[in-house]
Amino acid sequence: MAERITKQSEDFSHWYNDVVIQSELADYSPVRGCMVIRPNGYAVWEKMRDILDNMIKETGHQNAYFPLLIPEEFFKKEAEHVEGFSPECAVVTHGGGKKLEEPLMIRPTSETIIYNMYSKWIKSYRDLPVLLNQWANIVRGEMRTRLFLRTTEFLWQEGHTAHSTYEEAEEECLKMLDVYREFAENYMAVPVIKGQKSEKEKFAGALKTYSIEAMMQDKKALQCGTSHNLGQNFAKAFNVRFQTKNGDMEYVWQTSWGVSTRLVGALVMAHSDDQGLVIPPRLAPTQVVIVPIWGDEKENSEIKNLVEKILGELKNGVSVKADMGDQNSPGWKFNQYELLGVPLRIEIGPKELKSKEVVFVRRDNYQKEKASLINIKEKTEILLDSIQTDIFKKAIKFREENTFHIEDYEKFRDIIDGDGGFIMAHWCGNKTCENIIQEETKAIICTMPFESKIENGKCIICGDKSLKRVLFAKSY
Amino acid sequence: MAERITKQSEDFSHWYNDVVIQSELADYSPVRGCMVIRPNGYAVWEKMRDILDNMIKETGHQNAYFPLLIPEEFFKKEAEHVEGFSPECAVVTHGGGKKLEEPLMIRPTSETIIYNMYSKWIKSYRDLPVLLNQWANIVRGEMRTRLFLRTTEFLWQEGHTAHSTYEEAEEECLKMLDVYREFAENYMAVPVIKGQKSEKEKFAGALKTYSIEAMMQDKKALQCGTSHNLGQNFAKAFNVRFQTKNGDMEYVWQTSWGVSTRLVGALVMAHSDDQGLVIPPRLAPTQVVIVPIWGDEKENSEIKNLVEKILGELKNGVSVKADMGDQNSPGWKFNQYELLGVPLRIEIGPKELKSKEVVFVRRDNYQKEKASLINIKEKTEILLDSIQTDIFKKAIKFREENTFHIEDYEKFRDIIDGDGGFIMAHWCGNKTCENIIQEETKAIICTMPFESKIENGKCIICGDKSLKRVLFAKSY
Repeated sequence: MAERITKQSEDFSHWYNDVVIQSELADYSPVRGCMVIRPNGYAVWEKMRDILDNMIKETGHQNAYFPLLIPEEFFKKEAEHVEGFSPECAVVTHGGGKKLEEPLMIRPTSETIIYNMYSKWIKSYRDLPVLLNQWANIVRGEMRTRLFLRTTEFLWQEGHTAHSTYEEAEEECLKMLDVYREFAENYMAVPVIKGQKSEKEKFAGALKTYSIEAMMQDKKALQCGTSHNLGQNFAKAFNVRFQTKNGDMEYVWQTSWGVSTRLVGALVMAHSDDQGLVIPPRLAPTQVVIVPIWGDEKENSEIKNLVEKILGELKNGVSVKADMGDQNSPGWKFNQYELLGVPLRIEIGPKELKSKEVVFVRRDNYQKEKASLINIKEKTEILLDSIQTDIFKKAIKFREENTFHIEDYEKFRDIIDGDGGFIMAHWCGNKTCENIIQEETKAIICTMPFESKIENGKCIICGDKSLKRVLFAKSY
Repeated sequence: MAERITKQSEDFSHWYNDVVIQSELADYSPVRGCMVIRPNGYAVWEKMRDILDNMIKETGHQNAYFPLLIPEEFFKKEAEHVEGFSPECAVVTHGGGKKLEEPLMIRPTSETIIYNMYSKWIKSYRDLPVLLNQWANIVRGEMRTRLFLRTTEFLWQEGHTAHSTYEEAEEECLKMLDVYREFAENYMAVPVIKGQKSEKEKFAGALKTYSIEAMMQDKKALQCGTSHNLGQNFAKAFNVRFQTKNGDMEYVWQTSWGVSTRLVGALVMAHSDDQGLVIPPRLAPTQVVIVPIWGDEKENSEIKNLVEKILGELKNGVSVKADMGDQNSPGWKFNQYELLGVPLRIEIGPKELKSKEVVFVRRDNYQKEKASLINIKEKTEILLDSIQTDIFKKAIKFREENTFHIEDYEKFRDIIDGDGGFIMAHWCGNKTCENIIQEETKAIICTMPFESKIENGKCIICGDKSLKRVLFAKSY
């Protein structure tokens, strides 16, 4: 505690690590690329998981659980998939003291093992749609790892659905993308851009990949969730067929979609500051902390009573705690709960006793406000709501200020090599131009945004015709 | 659906598999020893997990998440532990396309990786106690696997705590054992016996292992949860030390405790019957199903209205669904929801419309009861409560009827080789006698029950002095 956090403006990446480590969201582990999610971080993930789980169930999905270990041969069945994932898989070669007959891969994603089961379960159109989701851990041999953002092991949910038509699969795919958008915006307070990935960036084995993309405070993009229309690629590889109403045998149409513990990293990079975490109230494990400011003995006893009373009032509906310890000064406590990102602080001391008021301090903008003892619950709820809204508005404003519509490659490079930002620019659709930009600037096509309007434009590299702008940025 | 379930009395093990597969709790996977937990099974596990998670948090613990992969050298640090677990570990030798410098084990339990972190986090008595829990998947190379009961991969929670004294660790250990007992008895409706494991049966690396043991309907014992007092064994192996108030450096005292998806198997084997699952109401994902019995058109419209009305009344507080489809007959539906173990069925047809009553049918004993439309909610709640209680009572009675206090080895063998059961008998405490019994009868010492009274007895094998009876049974 109380180590210095590197200033965000000095070194963003250092700042990020300092915040994550010092607020005890996570720690490095002795296993290369794997992190430990500490209670503070896991509590945020649990909140995210519970809310998302509800949203996933409300859209008609059920949870299930499939094996961690996948036979190597399964990966080889879908050509693009094996090419995309095999190089980064962890391979189990020994078990129970013996060499295994066939190596097993630790799941880097579960399409193959799940669709093998679907081929057994799905017989008829009456069995469709199949709408399953799984919460699981995933292992990928990432080369450069970052806490939460890119780790060898991470936690996620992966939805896997099977449908009788292309249209239904496409609809499902877009529905879940919108669930992710709603979650990101309404709970994480992170504005996102929905769109489709380029061929180069799409999921290995998918027809199309959709994603939501968010701007972090270093103006880089973070992919926050993906939804894949898998077409019939995996159905053909795993022979997942159903009998139609007419009695014909057809391959099912499939989707998969997921978000991961990466979202905890997104939360940190989108909102936090040089004092530590800023957590939107809807995801904060503790929303309000009461810090007493001790006076004389008589006052202290009154303060204690008052704190108890307020705790009692708030408890029903607000996640609140009081830090009554006397080893640490109020100032130390203020710093501590700012580091931990508790959205709202209530201070109560002798002055407040006299004036029958308490002091509210907002974590997001440090604004102080006095409120009468009479309507503390109402005031608390109003403040939590406005913190939630204001964080979101601030993030939207930041993104707007740092998004540029650019027509020529020179300007493009000025921005990307300079202060950075999101660039909306025209692109011919050709991978050659996409590669040139990535090689020369390290910016990628994050997504082809749905919101892009049709207009006559020219690719910023080759000058060929383009009808829509795509989103370029440096990306995590 | 509608395949024949082997009769429990014909072949218990076959019956068990039939029930699990046909009620779609789980399915076999293509990976040796691994199962797929299907939505019906996962929904039960989720209920268990949510309730237990609450109980674990209410006793002061926080959740965290530690890496799946553990360096091989970590296992070697605690001598008994490595001996117990190494032979059954799955080993990762390759990752990211290359051979790893050091092999990684997939966690068969997480003491080693967690206590490595504790050695970093714990510095002073002020850091204690550390009370963490993790929900995770586990892999052990089991030889003979059974759905839920013994699978290569399973889901569980594992608590890991560190304390400043032996007494505090022992207290924690017994407290969590009692949380497990409460969960088993009050939610699973499975009566359990608390006790201590013999040296032979204790956890590899523990000072003492406590467990809860339950009788299944085949009169075999199932260990439903364990709690280990680890003493300072792991603290010494991983150098987990703290500075005391006096400034001395001491090793911490540790505990670990866990329950797993095995509990879903326990639920099936303790209560279910030849029609399928019997799930206690407190763990049933669906507690009540309404099945309409169609009449003429006018009646059907009235039935639909009534069902909607009842759904509306029950929804708040009861998990209820109605099966309004007309492809399947009421009889088919009755069978189906009996197979799935829905505790209570409500039937509504033309007859019920006329009499302004509905018919309740209990899953546990098939008793039918009519109830007036006026107080359906109240009646439902009363019935669900008595199903919960009656299932528990029935299990207690069954255990009592099949528990025998035996003084000589011949009688012991008669029972174990015959109908089976729990045997409370004297044992000298010597591993030699324990081994003889196990080799000759396949019964083990399940536990040394806390409830055993002090009395003068003689070991049923060697005749040496014994002060307390222990529990012998064939065990899963």
